[in-house]
Amino acid sequence: MTASQTNKSKHVLINGQQDESLSPFDRGFSYGDGVFRTLPVIKGHPDSWLDHYKKLMSDCHVLGIVCPSAEILLSDIEKLIQASSSEQSKKQTPSKETPSFVIKIIITRGESERGYAMPALAQPSRVLICSDFPTYPESSFVEGVKLHLCNLRLSHQPLLAGIKHLNRLENVIARAEWQDSNIIDGVLLDANNMVIECTSSNIFARFGTQLHTPDLSNCGVAGLTRQRILELAGDLSLQRSVSNISLSHLMQADEIIICNSLFGAWQVREFNHQHWPQLPLANQLRTLLKSPHAHH
Amino acid sequence: MTASQTNKSKHVLINGQQDESLSPFDRGFSYGDGVFRTLPVIKGHPDSWLDHYKKLMSDCHVLGIVCPSAEILLSDIEKLIQASSSEQSKKQTPSKETPSFVIKIIITRGESERGYAMPALAQPSRVLICSDFPTYPESSFVEGVKLHLCNLRLSHQPLLAGIKHLNRLENVIARAEWQDSNIIDGVLLDANNMVIECTSSNIFARFGTQLHTPDLSNCGVAGLTRQRILELAGDLSLQRSVSNISLSHLMQADEIIICNSLFGAWQVREFNHQHWPQLPLANQLRTLLKSPHAHH
Repeated sequence: MTASQTNKSKHVLINGQQDESLSPFDRGFSYGDGVFRTLPVIKGHPDSWLDHYKKLMSDCHVLGIVCPSAEILLSDIEKLIQASSSEQSKKQTPSKETPSFVIKIIITRGESERGYAMPALAQPSRVLICSDFPTYPESSFVEGVKLHLCNLRLSHQPLLAGIKHLNRLENVIARAEWQDSNIIDGVLLDANNMVIECTSSNIFARFGTQLHTPDLSNCGVAGLTRQRILELAGDLSLQRSVSNISLSHLMQADEIIICNSLFGAWQVREFNHQHWPQLPLANQLRTLLKSPHAHH
Repeated sequence: MTASQTNKSKHVLINGQQDESLSPFDRGFSYGDGVFRTLPVIKGHPDSWLDHYKKLMSDCHVLGIVCPSAEILLSDIEKLIQASSSEQSKKQTPSKETPSFVIKIIITRGESERGYAMPALAQPSRVLICSDFPTYPESSFVEGVKLHLCNLRLSHQPLLAGIKHLNRLENVIARAEWQDSNIIDGVLLDANNMVIECTSSNIFARFGTQLHTPDLSNCGVAGLTRQRILELAGDLSLQRSVSNISLSHLMQADEIIICNSLFGAWQVREFNHQHWPQLPLANQLRTLLKSPHAHH
């Protein structure tokens, strides 16, 4: 199997089977007809599982895909963690506090004949991949990060906006705009120069005690950490606001934060020829996101 | 292999190998990071091969994917035709005049680690699928076809417009808008109510001696048959025009044609509560498209 040759440290389950292969007739491959999620494994358990599963179900629902049950997915995840842990423990003893793995869950509409028409009795496919947790530079947490301003403009498609589907060519093209490894992500605007998100994270801008994040009803992926930060804003005495933010408005923010399920939250210190002083919001958010009381 | 279970009559080559499987790390699956083509096999040969290959190369170029050589792809195609022909001849003797098979060629950027960044040394993947030629209703050729007006509006993404990439969720959602098997395709507009294409074909509108087809610089797939019809317009004493066409403008057309590489050209007889009389352009175009002199 090609996968095992180039990705020796990864564990994969396709429809629950270790030696199953992906069909070239899978509509995930033919059309990007599916959705996915990426979540960390902390202390042997998938982080914020119920929230991730809810979002996965909701994204599947938008595309009319029948989402596999939580029990089936959890059983796959447990198998993957077990296999990966036994391999990892041979190499090193990972810190109990930091996440050990990343689980990627892909759900597609399943196989079909040639043609866009959805099969009447589609059997959804599930592909779960367990990889080592990425090693982020410590400076991103301590000092903050630098962002690129992408040239690509996200297109408006309200029928797909917000969901994490497999049509990700815009992200691929945008991510190819920079090679500088000091740049951690790129800010994506729409054709009206409204700020939407980054290629792999969502974005927040604090103006005084107001915490803004872009409205994603026309484009962008509404990540789970974005949702959790919106719920946590009150704990930090911030008024949350979900609205259109122009690039020029963003540049006036007191503090900019990017977030996703893997790194939590980072402060943006440099973007579009402007610098921001070091401020505590990203740290505070990371602490709150890790707290077991964070789930409202 | 799952594929062979549900698609017994199909022949597939993955990177030239019959028993190769698709990797779940292939970026075609993860992100729709690739392009494809669909072409008929006529009298044992891929139809308009050089034109299809040129377009495949050009689409790959837009995404920065290194397209496999024509020799490699032709060798795959010949293997597939041979395998499929020997199987088909056991079942029936196909007419020499009608296409026997459809070849679908998918080229992806290849495998990579998790994340949108393009791998530095990507080895593109090629998947070739040979299926039986679809049996279109005779009435579509003789009497013409009926189209649906899609509710979905195509999004504007000039960086991807025109190319036949694997991000096809818009087509999937639009195609799911109708179940009536008498409706042969659906007309897609953009957010400005400009006519762009159909879900699986391009569209032409004749106004007197002017043959219009929509401009595809913001969205849509520029099919090969669209290009060939533009080149053939002069042979029919028609002035070609590539420009924006609003829905209300389209409704005033003397004749509407849809086209693709498989069926050639069909006249639209019914669309958006309006009927058109039977006229000869689609027939004339089909004859010209089949002629060996059609390639300018």
